[in-house]
Amino acid sequence: MDRVPLQRKVLSENDRIAALLREEFSRRGILCLNFISSPGSGKTSLLERTLAALPPSSRAAVLTGDIQTDNDARRLSRYGFPVQQITTAGACHLDARMIERALGAWNLDSIGLLLIENVGNLVCPASYDLGEDAKVVVLSVTEGEDKPLKYPATFFKSRAVIFNKIDLLPYVPLDLELAKQNARSVHPGIEIIETSCTTGHGLDVWRSWLARAISGKSPRSVGSVPAAR
Amino acid sequence: MDRVPLQRKVLSENDRIAALLREEFSRRGILCLNFISSPGSGKTSLLERTLAALPPSSRAAVLTGDIQTDNDARRLSRYGFPVQQITTAGACHLDARMIERALGAWNLDSIGLLLIENVGNLVCPASYDLGEDAKVVVLSVTEGEDKPLKYPATFFKSRAVIFNKIDLLPYVPLDLELAKQNARSVHPGIEIIETSCTTGHGLDVWRSWLARAISGKSPRSVGSVPAAR
Repeated sequence: MDRVPLQRKVLSENDRIAALLREEFSRRGILCLNFISSPGSGKTSLLERTLAALPPSSRAAVLTGDIQTDNDARRLSRYGFPVQQITTAGACHLDARMIERALGAWNLDSIGLLLIENVGNLVCPASYDLGEDAKVVVLSVTEGEDKPLKYPATFFKSRAVIFNKIDLLPYVPLDLELAKQNARSVHPGIEIIETSCTTGHGLDVWRSWLARAISGKSPRSVGSVPAAR
Repeated sequence: MDRVPLQRKVLSENDRIAALLREEFSRRGILCLNFISSPGSGKTSLLERTLAALPPSSRAAVLTGDIQTDNDARRLSRYGFPVQQITTAGACHLDARMIERALGAWNLDSIGLLLIENVGNLVCPASYDLGEDAKVVVLSVTEGEDKPLKYPATFFKSRAVIFNKIDLLPYVPLDLELAKQNARSVHPGIEIIETSCTTGHGLDVWRSWLARAISGKSPRSVGSVPAAR
């Protein structure tokens, strides 16, 4: 079984396309974020709350991946920004080729912020670079404090972790400090944000993080800021 | 890229080993269940509550899969039954070869019930037959009612779905009836069980389900009960 070499070939082809996408995003000053999480962490709700507060001048656009259904695209398309569903037909992650194809339908001049919602899966998406500036991992507090240790690749590769559904903290046995400590033990520099899309708690902090990321990527600074992986 | 044919080759090799395992389990009257869920659905807690109530005569044994860490094996080994951790070193699912290897360390004469806790992933494990009598999907009510529609393969292939963390229902926006309806729309015959490992709600129903599954698999009936997939 020559599975491992083939997997390497698939990944290196993916990396090649991702590098082209990253170059294109950098040249155009597009900030691209790749959101990764388990099913049901609240990624789509977080993106809804994010889009609802963005001005048209942000020129946001959303690609949302799912194995089946276009529920998320329908939810996300209410906010006046372009949204495309990528249905992976069984694949457990988005890959760079899917992003490249989807972007072919859009005029990139009209995009300043590209938000990619990956397939709900805390494992496989971490292996597929999409040309993003940063991965953001979303973890519901209902999932348990051990998840950074059990899924280290995703946490290691993410610039930030969002502890979401923080309003459920009184009802679940999660030790939030231990969860943060576990995230930092896998990735010491990871930025940590707490949010609840139900109560709105922490969304201001998340929006400030996003605003800083956008201004760090403005066309002025292209060339001076190395693309983070 | 000959990825799809290769994936087929990997799956058909997996199916070959799984068929041998199923034959072996059937010959020995071992009931084998394959538990699949997202990260953080409460699979390990459910298995803890299950093991705590099983008599030694059940001759239970547990294989628990994780990408990294042996936390779950440590949690599960407190109940007096043999437990083995299978660390997949990056793979996002268990496969039949991993099960075959792990079972090599045990005397199968001393096993009557084999509980397999798959890697936390609602996508990929559904593609890998482990020789089990039945898959059981565990869904936390915090994950949202749309999950059966978004991850249909897992729900279609599972004999039962356990809606877990049912004690959190008052605090989350889940429409439980719609969630059940979605599960049935993907798999009309799926059995539905509601549990909370915190309050103990529904664990009696789950234990009765398990007792019925065990008695349906007793050595007496081998040959008369076709192995369900």
